[in-house]
Amino acid sequence: MAATRPQRAPITSPAAATVFSTVLTQGPVSRVEVGRRTGLSSAAVTKAARPFIEAGYLEELTSEERTGPGAGRPANPLAIKADREFFLGVKITDDDLIGVVCDLRAQVRVARHHPLTSTAVPDVVAALTSLVADLITPYRDRAHCLGVAVSGDVDQTTGVVRYSPFLRWHDVPLGDLLAEATGLAVRLENDVKALTVAEQWFGEGVGVTSFALVTVGTGIGCGLVIGGRLVTGAHGVAGELGHVPVGDDQPCHCGGTGCVEAIASTSAIVARAGMPMAEAVARARSGDPAVRAVFAEAGHAIGLALAAMANLVGPERIVVSGEGVAAYDLFEEHVRKAFTAQAFGAVADCLLILRPLPFEEWARGAAAVSIQALFRH
Amino acid sequence: MAATRPQRAPITSPAAATVFSTVLTQGPVSRVEVGRRTGLSSAAVTKAARPFIEAGYLEELTSEERTGPGAGRPANPLAIKADREFFLGVKITDDDLIGVVCDLRAQVRVARHHPLTSTAVPDVVAALTSLVADLITPYRDRAHCLGVAVSGDVDQTTGVVRYSPFLRWHDVPLGDLLAEATGLAVRLENDVKALTVAEQWFGEGVGVTSFALVTVGTGIGCGLVIGGRLVTGAHGVAGELGHVPVGDDQPCHCGGTGCVEAIASTSAIVARAGMPMAEAVARARSGDPAVRAVFAEAGHAIGLALAAMANLVGPERIVVSGEGVAAYDLFEEHVRKAFTAQAFGAVADCLLILRPLPFEEWARGAAAVSIQALFRH
Repeated sequence: MAATRPQRAPITSPAAATVFSTVLTQGPVSRVEVGRRTGLSSAAVTKAARPFIEAGYLEELTSEERTGPGAGRPANPLAIKADREFFLGVKITDDDLIGVVCDLRAQVRVARHHPLTSTAVPDVVAALTSLVADLITPYRDRAHCLGVAVSGDVDQTTGVVRYSPFLRWHDVPLGDLLAEATGLAVRLENDVKALTVAEQWFGEGVGVTSFALVTVGTGIGCGLVIGGRLVTGAHGVAGELGHVPVGDDQPCHCGGTGCVEAIASTSAIVARAGMPMAEAVARARSGDPAVRAVFAEAGHAIGLALAAMANLVGPERIVVSGEGVAAYDLFEEHVRKAFTAQAFGAVADCLLILRPLPFEEWARGAAAVSIQALFRH
Repeated sequence: MAATRPQRAPITSPAAATVFSTVLTQGPVSRVEVGRRTGLSSAAVTKAARPFIEAGYLEELTSEERTGPGAGRPANPLAIKADREFFLGVKITDDDLIGVVCDLRAQVRVARHHPLTSTAVPDVVAALTSLVADLITPYRDRAHCLGVAVSGDVDQTTGVVRYSPFLRWHDVPLGDLLAEATGLAVRLENDVKALTVAEQWFGEGVGVTSFALVTVGTGIGCGLVIGGRLVTGAHGVAGELGHVPVGDDQPCHCGGTGCVEAIASTSAIVARAGMPMAEAVARARSGDPAVRAVFAEAGHAIGLALAAMANLVGPERIVVSGEGVAAYDLFEEHVRKAFTAQAFGAVADCLLILRPLPFEEWARGAAAVSIQALFRH
């Protein structure tokens, strides 16, 4: 039986994709409810679900009520069998790799760090291949896909890293290199966009047509989902919240002036406080007014930029995360105050969620991209 | 023949809507090309087009080549018969009404001003009804729809003006009042959104999936089209470019600080220059450095806000218009300079178009909304 069932999820039609993605992101859910949410008839839902049940990707939660093969009652909720397939995700930074194995619902099963001694392309490919080989061993027969997240300008379609400032890479065909080295189906994505995909499918973005995911840390990034779709920009650039000018004469590395990133990124805080980040956080927490002011200005700048973004596109929710938010006790009040003062009218109703970002979340985002890629065949 | 053909465009199916809107906004275009752009088969295009040809909404440009009823060759381009139906559009300001009659392609056939002596609801309804009666006379048998544009918060679905600061209206069921008074199908829209619809269907937005229309004048507004759809905001507010903070301590009427509108709106310029607008424009043109600086600051603020918006959503084009742009010789250089300095990476490739806005364009926007409403049955 196991030998004859399909290796991969049988997404063979638009209806199959719709039904499977609905159960994946919103299940357990009854066939009737799937029909209501997707506009498909109950018969179409039943027909579309059957191959997924047969292939082991979906199950009926009360299967003891089934009266014959494939004749499940419509009221039986459909649920994903999360361990039917596993997905690898790797985030590349300039000094390490973070790798995870996730199940179909993007739950992390195992996470591992791997230090990088070089960012030369062959060294990164070799290290990543070794990390993947290590991670995949217990899952080999049920893992076929690898998602990789990199900061910078990534062409998802061709699998090319066009430009990554932190890695100092230009036009690196990383997707092809990794596919050859690992034998897996590889999907590349910008790291902030990958986190946004994870949030859209498995987090605060489920059932929401517009939201923003903002990351605060080394850089300040933003993934925008509007009308249910990630905004990519006509010229390949969008979500550059870090380069929204918020009224300060601070020059930014981008050539602009007063950018949020020039005030609130980790390196900006370090420069303005005149000490390493850990020391700045400790001093601010112990009450040093000068250092507290640096965090207050950073929080104020972030709050203004969030309000600018929300006044323009009116998202339902904003999630602010990133390694910088580890110190969010120093930021949060100032972020919220500036946001509320500058939000126009009903924009103030936008739900603003601040939360820390465990580093493995970036790798989980990469895995989520490879789950989403199931639907792109 | 005229008596038996349908009164209205026979938009009876999604395919009919797709074919008719494609020819309306992109025609003349061959059936083959309509099929290519919409994904419909040639046979489906021919079938969908036939009722429109019979009802006089579409024609084949080389009709002499037709060999039998309804048997036009696929290569004959389809074109809209622009004078098959006419649409009224009215913009309401606090001291006058501007009314137009447009054809199916939103070309203005006649425009008329009507002073308002009161903004009390019954007075505006009476004045608008009289203006409409005047405008419609030569078009009565082929005009059934009226679009109305109002600044402020307008609920298009219910036809209620929820709040219009300039008119000091709260929760006015203007759509129902005007439908009863005029006997026409009435569609209400926010004025900036109405201009954006006109641009999307009949202007710079044709064939473009993302663009922004920005108006500079009494207020500073913005209509954003992303992924082919007007962004409306999860809480009913979006496109508030006027309330993007751009780094000045100027308090704004909205409660925020440093808003573009507090620096670059007509009233802000009048206040900062200390003289009426016409005088400020004349003095600046004659070289008065203090007044020129007021316009330069306004242009700079607008340019920064445009860059903030473009860095966030990456539109393909930005059209800046509005009555304030009548003085665009005083603004333009500063708008472009600030935009270019602050645009992040490839965002600088965004096409930035500045152009004056004849006042009747607002009314044309309202008419365009009523044309678009044909597709909302």
